[in-house]
Amino acid sequence: MHSKFSDWNHTIAAIATPPGIGAIGVLRVSGDQAFDIVQRLFPSKKLKELPGNTLHVGYLKDGENILDEVVLSLFKMPSSYTGEDVIEISCHGSPFVQQQVLDTLIRNGARLAKAGEFTQRAFLNKKLDLTQAESVADLIASNTKASQNAALKNMRGGFSDILLELREELIKFSSLIELELDFSEEDVEFADRNKFSLLIKNIGVTVNRLLESFSLGNVIKNGVSVAIIGKPNAGKSTLLNTLLNENRAIVSEIAGTTRDTIEEVININGILFRLIDTAGIRKHSHDVIENMGVVKSMEKIKQADMILYLFDVDDMKKDELEKTIKEIKEQNPNVIIVANKADLFDKEAHHEFMNEIFISAKKQTGIEELKNTLFAMAGGAGINNENIVLTNARHYAALAEVSKSLKEIKSGLSNKISGDLLSIDINRCLHYLGEITGEITNEDRLDYIFSKFCIGK
Amino acid sequence: MHSKFSDWNHTIAAIATPPGIGAIGVLRVSGDQAFDIVQRLFPSKKLKELPGNTLHVGYLKDGENILDEVVLSLFKMPSSYTGEDVIEISCHGSPFVQQQVLDTLIRNGARLAKAGEFTQRAFLNKKLDLTQAESVADLIASNTKASQNAALKNMRGGFSDILLELREELIKFSSLIELELDFSEEDVEFADRNKFSLLIKNIGVTVNRLLESFSLGNVIKNGVSVAIIGKPNAGKSTLLNTLLNENRAIVSEIAGTTRDTIEEVININGILFRLIDTAGIRKHSHDVIENMGVVKSMEKIKQADMILYLFDVDDMKKDELEKTIKEIKEQNPNVIIVANKADLFDKEAHHEFMNEIFISAKKQTGIEELKNTLFAMAGGAGINNENIVLTNARHYAALAEVSKSLKEIKSGLSNKISGDLLSIDINRCLHYLGEITGEITNEDRLDYIFSKFCIGK
Repeated sequence: MHSKFSDWNHTIAAIATPPGIGAIGVLRVSGDQAFDIVQRLFPSKKLKELPGNTLHVGYLKDGENILDEVVLSLFKMPSSYTGEDVIEISCHGSPFVQQQVLDTLIRNGARLAKAGEFTQRAFLNKKLDLTQAESVADLIASNTKASQNAALKNMRGGFSDILLELREELIKFSSLIELELDFSEEDVEFADRNKFSLLIKNIGVTVNRLLESFSLGNVIKNGVSVAIIGKPNAGKSTLLNTLLNENRAIVSEIAGTTRDTIEEVININGILFRLIDTAGIRKHSHDVIENMGVVKSMEKIKQADMILYLFDVDDMKKDELEKTIKEIKEQNPNVIIVANKADLFDKEAHHEFMNEIFISAKKQTGIEELKNTLFAMAGGAGINNENIVLTNARHYAALAEVSKSLKEIKSGLSNKISGDLLSIDINRCLHYLGEITGEITNEDRLDYIFSKFCIGK
Repeated sequence: MHSKFSDWNHTIAAIATPPGIGAIGVLRVSGDQAFDIVQRLFPSKKLKELPGNTLHVGYLKDGENILDEVVLSLFKMPSSYTGEDVIEISCHGSPFVQQQVLDTLIRNGARLAKAGEFTQRAFLNKKLDLTQAESVADLIASNTKASQNAALKNMRGGFSDILLELREELIKFSSLIELELDFSEEDVEFADRNKFSLLIKNIGVTVNRLLESFSLGNVIKNGVSVAIIGKPNAGKSTLLNTLLNENRAIVSEIAGTTRDTIEEVININGILFRLIDTAGIRKHSHDVIENMGVVKSMEKIKQADMILYLFDVDDMKKDELEKTIKEIKEQNPNVIIVANKADLFDKEAHHEFMNEIFISAKKQTGIEELKNTLFAMAGGAGINNENIVLTNARHYAALAEVSKSLKEIKSGLSNKISGDLLSIDINRCLHYLGEITGEITNEDRLDYIFSKFCIGK
């Protein structure tokens, strides 16, 4: 398999820590020339004679020129991340120094690693399967307890284990059916059609559960966007601040995350909610026609995962509220209706609103209930059980194909189609299952998957 | 000495790699509880039983909860950066995961390290002296070959060695003079005043050379700002582009670097020149009074380290040029005069300008000469010799005090003052010499020095 991959024999190098100034920065070198190349820069010890999994301090040199005082971590194949010889160079955290070390490694025979190439090599050397490799990227991008857990579960092979089990059972039947084909003259049935039917049904249940978990997986991985809308004086900003002050999420600046300036993120029980304050739109467009603001609000309503409609109990008639909510629901059915200023609320006078969530953004009452509602509406209940959650769109697409072929097998069985036709459907199903974990794959597809990783991983 | 430092016995932890997403992130734990604390998170091996300078892969756990799959680097005292027990935890490069690991370390007994505290501990444990510790921060901030070399030279103790030598010789004489005081009744002179005079002169030469090197040190560390000025059509933008296209410096985004939008940085032989295009000022102020632009230009001229005055040979009279240069030099004497459009230049007609640098920004002639002039004017000639260059303002201030006390000793000697008075001046000189390398220091001062380091170093 290796020979198919261009440049596979080349030793690769990359800076593995984030860009910028820090106390230390780490470069990674992997490949059969790793020790030879680093040796040329690190004359004080004979690296090949040293045992693996050891640390060594010394000067890194480019000829007579000292580059830095570094710590080397030596990993010998196959006991390394990639399964190849690996040296990690921990140098001082100056981007300039790191770039110089990288340049010197390259001048001495290493090639700059492509994005995800270390992990791709780990996959090719069977250190991890494809879903595990993908979960490495997910773990790096994780920003909540829930996304971290989902990634770690996959990294440890939870998802792969399920698929391998399904695949093995299918392969067993598949080979029995193919055996029948060899004896096709004799009209025997080695594969018990009833048992097979039951197996297909069971596999279908597991596959469907995984497919259904994808909406939660999406919530875990990408968070939930919530547009907060309401009349100018409904108290949107106060509510936003109340939610933010309590538990503003620490969200790192992630390249590629498009953040509106008026988006704020909070973490409710491990799910990130991106709160979009539509008031911000109004603010920025104060000198254009008012209609513009309304159009933009409507767009936000359509695009958001949920709508939080806030109204002032003292500034709203029941029929007006019903009419507004009806209009919003035509654009987006996921609406949470919140009555604000419950601190000023005269229950007698406003009994018509008793079905809504009541809060006082100012006095911070009812906020817990609101958060629980947001969490529940996002399907958060499923977050804490031990089930595997599908978070990867590639896996979803392949499992959807598995589900389709399972239905075809099922209808084939009930129509009593011949073994050779059944075999085609089973192979199709096996193909898509194998594609997820990487048993069946092709070079372009792999390159595409790993290209979404960061350099140095 | 250690006991003076509050909280010295606490084991400290910090994220040591830059913030942001990367392939890996490293946390550092140092102190006598380092192994105990990390052990609680890393149940798969008995860390204390493992040898130092070894690497170990395993799951990091918070109770039953897996945080990440990590590689531990074990360093046992005194063979570590700080001289204490140190464990580095290399985890996946998610800021969220790193923060979680840090939180868990702190919940298990570590304290968040203060900025520079790891290096401060290394200093207190005599792993490096104060100038070496400071050069660690300089190396991290280095962004050219020259600043990297200066920092490395100091880190290896070059500067300290010179100072220690001076200090030892002074101490020798100092003790002889103090011996005289014990025999003051007898009017003896153990310390040969002529030899001492010669020593003071020699020390003075070395100290002055170091003090003089500070202007180059400043250039190496902070670069040189060059305001490019000239009439609108002189070709400033073309020149800027020519200089940039050839060797635009790779300058990382450093927190605290204030960059004007119209500043560009080039690297000439290891010195960074920040080119300030005053044309940009004009552009941004097209609709305010023209005078405003002129005032701003004048400010830039005053603030810049050098002025590059560019003029078009075909659009300038000699007397006009002389008048302009005179006006500029009143604000800033460091002016390089550059005649542009030499491609259109008729030598016969413009013989009056023959003393200026001639370039054609468009045809890219004369650019090498211009760069050499910039480099020479910045004192670049001193960059490549092996002399120690003073780059630290704290060292400069202390050495200036040393120089002052040397002068007092000298005048004391020629005035034949008594040994006890001489002794006071010598001790003052020794004090400032010792303050540079950290032999003489106090807690507040140390805290201040290390507080300028980054967290995790």
